[in-house]
Amino acid sequence: MRIPFEEVKAELYRLLMTRGCPEAHAEKVAHEMARNSLEGVYTHGINRFPRLMRNIDDGLIRLNAEPVTVSAFGALESMDGGMGLGVINAWVAMARAIALAQTHGVGMVALRNTNHWLRAATYGYQACDAGMAAICFTNTLPNMPTWGAVDPRLGNNPLVMAMPHSGGHVVLDMATSQFSYGALELAQLQGRHMPADAGFDAQGNLTRDPGAVIESRRILPTGAWKGAGLSLLLDLFAGCVSMGNTTLRVGRLPGDEHGLSQMFIAVHFHAIVPEDQADATVEETLANLRASKMDEHTQAIRWPGSRLAETREQNLREGIPVDDRVWATIRSLG
Amino acid sequence: MRIPFEEVKAELYRLLMTRGCPEAHAEKVAHEMARNSLEGVYTHGINRFPRLMRNIDDGLIRLNAEPVTVSAFGALESMDGGMGLGVINAWVAMARAIALAQTHGVGMVALRNTNHWLRAATYGYQACDAGMAAICFTNTLPNMPTWGAVDPRLGNNPLVMAMPHSGGHVVLDMATSQFSYGALELAQLQGRHMPADAGFDAQGNLTRDPGAVIESRRILPTGAWKGAGLSLLLDLFAGCVSMGNTTLRVGRLPGDEHGLSQMFIAVHFHAIVPEDQADATVEETLANLRASKMDEHTQAIRWPGSRLAETREQNLREGIPVDDRVWATIRSLG
Repeated sequence: MRIPFEEVKAELYRLLMTRGCPEAHAEKVAHEMARNSLEGVYTHGINRFPRLMRNIDDGLIRLNAEPVTVSAFGALESMDGGMGLGVINAWVAMARAIALAQTHGVGMVALRNTNHWLRAATYGYQACDAGMAAICFTNTLPNMPTWGAVDPRLGNNPLVMAMPHSGGHVVLDMATSQFSYGALELAQLQGRHMPADAGFDAQGNLTRDPGAVIESRRILPTGAWKGAGLSLLLDLFAGCVSMGNTTLRVGRLPGDEHGLSQMFIAVHFHAIVPEDQADATVEETLANLRASKMDEHTQAIRWPGSRLAETREQNLREGIPVDDRVWATIRSLG
Repeated sequence: MRIPFEEVKAELYRLLMTRGCPEAHAEKVAHEMARNSLEGVYTHGINRFPRLMRNIDDGLIRLNAEPVTVSAFGALESMDGGMGLGVINAWVAMARAIALAQTHGVGMVALRNTNHWLRAATYGYQACDAGMAAICFTNTLPNMPTWGAVDPRLGNNPLVMAMPHSGGHVVLDMATSQFSYGALELAQLQGRHMPADAGFDAQGNLTRDPGAVIESRRILPTGAWKGAGLSLLLDLFAGCVSMGNTTLRVGRLPGDEHGLSQMFIAVHFHAIVPEDQADATVEETLANLRASKMDEHTQAIRWPGSRLAETREQNLREGIPVDDRVWATIRSLG
């Protein structure tokens, strides 16, 4: 079925309020989750709402918490998220990085004791809307074996790089596994196989079957040993600079994933580069990419963020596609 | 054959001096190229020296140039490398990022009009030796098609992330192609196939044959569409913030690859995190990774930088392995 954005948002807001969530937090989280689905990121939108509510009901998320600065040195700060809502904490941390960048050219905020930020790209778009480029990343619980191993000791830690552009921001949002667990779960829900090897099955063979990988927990790092290395460094950066939990320690906490560490870097490059010149450089690069000679399997050249406006327009017009069972589950939560 | 480090370095130094290179630049470049081979990165050490000399002889590299600051705002600066030696420019830019970080907590330097920096990890180790974490990256000439395309319009832009550690720094150095052209060329030289798909052959089939990929120029991005997206963002960051050439524009310059854009970020995180605590966190994470249960093909768990000390010790003891033909070519250059 398809449900209008405002109706989805209102329902998520209503349900959060039944748990005693502060109004402003409920408004923001409902907005971002509905927006994720509106913009085509179904895995980190409505589909994830039941898990968020379960985490709240289990006491893993403190609805009233907001991040506080723990230590600071110039453009570098660390904040403690107090186990609050991941979306609220990450939004405040990136807002602080943006403010630091306005003063120092660059702002870097490490955040500890936070929870799942849902769609990683959110905070890249946040910086772009403020005219800044951004890099941010998070760790996760251990859900991916390193290269050559069978037991999960790395996270599939997502990385965001974002560059503002008048024709639509360019925002990379990549997990360091070839597919996120969210994408695997969606494919499993829809009875689809993945378009490339997604990991190993219980017998140690590469497979495109999402269910087999969810079961073995041997998801494939992006680019094999390279994604494993990238995941490790993202975890060390986030964990060490925030003095928060590494993936290893997140895995030791009882209950569902919580207590994460994240990093937010905002770059106020328009302080040293004329905005129109940078914008023209992005446009020239994208136009050149669009002009690529396509292989026989490809209908259109895409890049990170290129489909967003189209998906958003369609879902605004026709409503957000929502899985009937997921919506029924959500309605039953409050 | 195997040649002692000091003999390799002396020969490279001698040859650079025959081209009128300033002594300090010749000393630094000879040292870093010999060190790259010493530490096992043969693709970006001695094997690449003939190409460096050709670029010098073709006038693409200005031996006397050093980077100058073009504009600055707080912790953010851009420098112009004046088409100087890539190693010298990159070293000076990272040194400036480190100095900025000492003042501001973070330092970010965008460098334009520079040349190949050889081994990307060099500048990560440079930051780690100063007690800082680092992120740096460069663009390249167009040598990789984006996902779904057959003509190369992206670079296989390498990314470095580096975290200092008392037991050996953890330094990720990854090209955004599954294999670098350097690695493909080395395998071709040694008559080896790659251990995973390296790209497409002229008929559009995935292949592990390095020669077929070098010929088609259809190298595979790391993790398919993900590496393509990451490459694009690294190029946009380096090109826009430095106001230098993007990969597209590098490709339009006549002659071999030159005129690159790069980015250097140093993080003085010990200003807000006790050094011993961060170091213990890294050690704990690596010890946990090392304890992974290995699959049946694996003898030891590795991570970025884990083999460096061992390779270095062996090559110091036994001499650096050098391909006879490469060494003969080098000896003939002056």
